[in-house]
Amino acid sequence: MQDPESLKQFIADVGRMMHEELSLVLPSNWDVPETLRASMMYSLLAGGKRLRPVFVLAATEAIGHDHKDAISIASAIELIHTYSLIHDDLPAMDNDDFRRGKPTNHRMFGEAMAILAGDALLTHAFYLVSTTPDRCPNVSPATALAITKELSIFAGAMGMVGGQAADILSVQGETDLERLDYIHTHKTADLIVFSLRAGGLIGGARPQQLQALEIFGQSIGLAFQIQDDILDIIGDQHKLGKKTKSDETQNKVTYPYLMGLDQSIQKVEQLTRLGKEALLDGAIPQPQRLLLLAEYLMSRDF
Amino acid sequence: MQDPESLKQFIADVGRMMHEELSLVLPSNWDVPETLRASMMYSLLAGGKRLRPVFVLAATEAIGHDHKDAISIASAIELIHTYSLIHDDLPAMDNDDFRRGKPTNHRMFGEAMAILAGDALLTHAFYLVSTTPDRCPNVSPATALAITKELSIFAGAMGMVGGQAADILSVQGETDLERLDYIHTHKTADLIVFSLRAGGLIGGARPQQLQALEIFGQSIGLAFQIQDDILDIIGDQHKLGKKTKSDETQNKVTYPYLMGLDQSIQKVEQLTRLGKEALLDGAIPQPQRLLLLAEYLMSRDF
Repeated sequence: MQDPESLKQFIADVGRMMHEELSLVLPSNWDVPETLRASMMYSLLAGGKRLRPVFVLAATEAIGHDHKDAISIASAIELIHTYSLIHDDLPAMDNDDFRRGKPTNHRMFGEAMAILAGDALLTHAFYLVSTTPDRCPNVSPATALAITKELSIFAGAMGMVGGQAADILSVQGETDLERLDYIHTHKTADLIVFSLRAGGLIGGARPQQLQALEIFGQSIGLAFQIQDDILDIIGDQHKLGKKTKSDETQNKVTYPYLMGLDQSIQKVEQLTRLGKEALLDGAIPQPQRLLLLAEYLMSRDF
Repeated sequence: MQDPESLKQFIADVGRMMHEELSLVLPSNWDVPETLRASMMYSLLAGGKRLRPVFVLAATEAIGHDHKDAISIASAIELIHTYSLIHDDLPAMDNDDFRRGKPTNHRMFGEAMAILAGDALLTHAFYLVSTTPDRCPNVSPATALAITKELSIFAGAMGMVGGQAADILSVQGETDLERLDYIHTHKTADLIVFSLRAGGLIGGARPQQLQALEIFGQSIGLAFQIQDDILDIIGDQHKLGKKTKSDETQNKVTYPYLMGLDQSIQKVEQLTRLGKEALLDGAIPQPQRLLLLAEYLMSRDF
């Protein structure tokens, strides 16, 4: 069962399930202004790999627990990811007109509504986490509260938002590798670490197992971002669904810019190996799917 | 003790305490980019009446509980209020250059950093709520989780953000009283209702008491916003600390615009009376301070 084909099947299954879950995430009887609801749902259902939900559900299963109890956490992290994309695309930030081949949120609904849709998605992520015990009797209030705390840290001022702020403040020629690691770690890896730890917490993971999931997430998350930078140089823009060479055009500081392409490719391989080793050392009962996922992300061309 | 002077003293004390609390709210050992930290703290410590913390702490005491256990919830709601002001002031929203006599956040730190500071403050509010049991052993994880859920509802898509979206979408001549009530209730009253209910939950309030606090908050919150609209017409701009007649200049739909000034003043009095009655009917052990607060807000000129 645990071959690359079954992993692709799993990712496709999670994608379909998440699309269904996310389309129901804002109760239909909630009195939300129509345009705000439309703006939130537009970006939420615009597609994407649903990679963070894949990490949540795979981590819960790796601990030997049914992934059903983790679905609302998987939705929550996708809301956080989606809000961050909406705000990142704003004219004051990256000023992007298109994402995944569709007009960005502010191009469709205007800047004010895009800011509010992001705020509402961020806030609603905490609704989903805090109401998990109402839907899943196996999840205790204490566990849901622990996940709330972790989400507020990994998505906040010294997590994802911190990484985004450091990215905006970074200047080519002044940013060294340490600063770039801060940006990549917080902007990208932190939500992956959260996804893995939250999946573990739902599964009842012990501290040693959580630690292993965290190190795995840090390594794979950093590797994922470096691979993104590499694909921006050597990737196929049809497979990627976005323009390549954009980092160079925008004078972005990247791993290939600082270390060269070959060393960056080696770094991705090294980080993937380190992540897999941490997982194997961490007494995770069923690590196979996460191990395959690490390989799959390292060798992706999309 | 429960005279208007002691109420003013209480408000002043809460203001001082909150200033101290808020200045420590982002741990100094957290690795937050300096400019992001500065941007968050700039708006957080820019002053203001700290009215929502006053409601939280007064509600906890009204239930007969020490307000010490409610301080981090009071901080959390002030973070939410502050983030909403930063985002509201943005060029894409109200485009305000000054607030409380100081340059707005985006005028000081740029639009991108202001958006991120708002996002980080919103996220950090949930950190403060979710870590309350770590600081206050009297507060159970279940209570903290219940407050997390309420915050996500009252501050979210059908709460404060929903009210803000409805306000942006409103057009003079097309907005009737029902729509205006939606805007005022959600944009303003919802955070006041949350503050009262959260204070009640920390104090161990029974359902009947929570219900009374909620109705009180809805009435007082709506009265507060109508009074704001009235003061924009008849107020003294030195006492208010902001320009008057701005609603008229911006073609804003307000209560005085729809009902006239006299009827608006009567409405404030009627809502205040209703709120006080609900509180007296709700078996609240020590309602005096909240009753005085309702009177005080109705007759304010600032």
